[in-house]
Amino acid sequence: MISRPPPLLYADSESSSDALYFGRISVPDPFIAFGLRGRRHAVVSALEFARVKGNSEFDVVHSLEPYLEKAKTTWRGRAVGTAEVILLIAREYRQRAFTVPADFPAGVYARLRKLGLSLQIAKGALFPQREVKGPDEAAAIREGNRCSAAGIAAAERMLRKSRAKGGRLHYRDSVLTSERLQTEIEMACLAAGAVSSNTIAAGGDQACDPHHRGSGPLRPNELIITDVFPRVGATGYFGDMTRTFLRGRASDGQRELVAAVRAAQLAALKKIRAGVDGRAVHEKVVEVFESRGFKTATGPRGSTGFFHGTGHGVGLAIHEPPRMNRTADIVLKMGSVVTVEPGLYYPGLGACRIEDVVQVTAGAPRMLSSYPYDWELR
Amino acid sequence: MISRPPPLLYADSESSSDALYFGRISVPDPFIAFGLRGRRHAVVSALEFARVKGNSEFDVVHSLEPYLEKAKTTWRGRAVGTAEVILLIAREYRQRAFTVPADFPAGVYARLRKLGLSLQIAKGALFPQREVKGPDEAAAIREGNRCSAAGIAAAERMLRKSRAKGGRLHYRDSVLTSERLQTEIEMACLAAGAVSSNTIAAGGDQACDPHHRGSGPLRPNELIITDVFPRVGATGYFGDMTRTFLRGRASDGQRELVAAVRAAQLAALKKIRAGVDGRAVHEKVVEVFESRGFKTATGPRGSTGFFHGTGHGVGLAIHEPPRMNRTADIVLKMGSVVTVEPGLYYPGLGACRIEDVVQVTAGAPRMLSSYPYDWELR
Repeated sequence: MISRPPPLLYADSESSSDALYFGRISVPDPFIAFGLRGRRHAVVSALEFARVKGNSEFDVVHSLEPYLEKAKTTWRGRAVGTAEVILLIAREYRQRAFTVPADFPAGVYARLRKLGLSLQIAKGALFPQREVKGPDEAAAIREGNRCSAAGIAAAERMLRKSRAKGGRLHYRDSVLTSERLQTEIEMACLAAGAVSSNTIAAGGDQACDPHHRGSGPLRPNELIITDVFPRVGATGYFGDMTRTFLRGRASDGQRELVAAVRAAQLAALKKIRAGVDGRAVHEKVVEVFESRGFKTATGPRGSTGFFHGTGHGVGLAIHEPPRMNRTADIVLKMGSVVTVEPGLYYPGLGACRIEDVVQVTAGAPRMLSSYPYDWELR
Repeated sequence: MISRPPPLLYADSESSSDALYFGRISVPDPFIAFGLRGRRHAVVSALEFARVKGNSEFDVVHSLEPYLEKAKTTWRGRAVGTAEVILLIAREYRQRAFTVPADFPAGVYARLRKLGLSLQIAKGALFPQREVKGPDEAAAIREGNRCSAAGIAAAERMLRKSRAKGGRLHYRDSVLTSERLQTEIEMACLAAGAVSSNTIAAGGDQACDPHHRGSGPLRPNELIITDVFPRVGATGYFGDMTRTFLRGRASDGQRELVAAVRAAQLAALKKIRAGVDGRAVHEKVVEVFESRGFKTATGPRGSTGFFHGTGHGVGLAIHEPPRMNRTADIVLKMGSVVTVEPGLYYPGLGACRIEDVVQVTAGAPRMLSSYPYDWELR
């Protein structure tokens, strides 16, 4: 591996999984972090100082305010900020170059370059080792999926208890909406220890937009996608699972659709192992769909069929490397954790997606999610 | 106002409130958005296309895939991505310059500059008009605080029902922990329609770190800070409120501490109006604390007293302009929405913070949060 300058970050740990990975502490506002001779440094305000010093994996915690004061005297009469503080620290440690992630803020980047610091933008991940998960990380993702499953189980219970009335599902004497189902799922996730945001519980044609969260009344005999990706509070790792349900009686077309998606998922799972190309896994899914007559097309109002990737890495970020899709030019590594989530979307007929999470091994992948595949709730 | 090139964004709407503000739609993965001759454009993948076309404020929605294909033939043999797509679109519209926010990703920024596009980094906010909130926005923030208050009410109920046993609070026959209180608060927020993450429910010395979320058993006769900042699912706007409670009997020292914080908050509220300097409001709080003998100090293990800002703007982001703190060089604008949250932190004695949200007017600020200030729960 070609050596590159040490990492430099300026981010909060909520939106930057690199920042969370580096220091293993939740910091809600952007802060400076960097590596130097194998040690991890953080620069934080008084508001965060004691907590970061006591509860993180940073080896050295600097107080931000004295550096800001020093910056003010050094660049007298000018507005100073993050870039000037970083420069002062770099000078102090005689470090002239850093590697920054591709999502490093352009404002600080441009200012630091102007001030003369050499910054290299990481090609790909800042911490490539994040792609390979150790046993603790796999366990944390499994825990995330335990929470996902708790959410999906709550949705299934609610659907099973609901009744058809006037073309709509009713639960406890009022209309069952996507919103009620989402809240039920998110409550169950919370009770299990994870925060689920943007939970998808979408039925019928709404579900044919893969990222439509769903809104309004749900109907009997329509396919309902529940996609639940909660973040565990204690660790920051995500779960990510999807099941598709139907309350009532499915049509032959709906049964064929669901059977095709499950068959495609099983074919993908069979293909996944260390050393295999991500695109090859995706192409296997495409092949299964085509062999069963499910075509993909794009028109002026959107796409039908299968028009998203087969899977993505999951960990401290909900979407991270590696990807398994049409353009993915990557080889699956031992220990990588990926979703496997084929789906089919046809307005009029409905949509189905089934998603599980696995860890890549030399043989059959290790399942990190578990929930039954029964879907027709009569 | 000096005219500047139109805005260009590459962000997801979860972590970038600018992206959410610009298009008013939740998009979980980074996407390209830009303004051109008064119209708002988005470039999204097939996965998002129909949903963004149907449910956003974008005037023009472009499909990403054809541009990626075109980029591949234009830059044959090279890896292409976001920057190349942006350049193709800029050429198509004969637009040679854009303004990007300071948090625009450095990777795309550097590549676009290399490709010859002129990028100006916004000084301050990309959309300065976000600082001033209209009636709908004020209502959305008020709704966020209704959810915050629901969470705080749930915490207060739980504390009132808990009993002291062996130096710890017990609720329904088991120890009451910070974690249980957080879950109770977050459940109540969810039921009210908002997702509360990183909720603070910290007691005793833990609460003396303002961003410590709290963990482990809570005790009688200690000050317990509950800071609740949920995001409303339907709008993306935040609420942000804090109350401090004590279950049992307060000491004289604790009473003086809480009285000082509330007095400081009232003094700040009295000071806030359009045209006033943010620093002046902060200095008023400092003055109240000093006049009552509450000193601020910084030592090697952290700070004590009052060592954070008095308030920050809140809206589609939990922290946004304007700031009211020691260094804030801003004048409060009519219609701005800010938190007012003085606090005092003394390990041994405990910590108190009281936070409300107001909208700046020509006279007394308009309260956008509401919850009683009773805190000693005997």
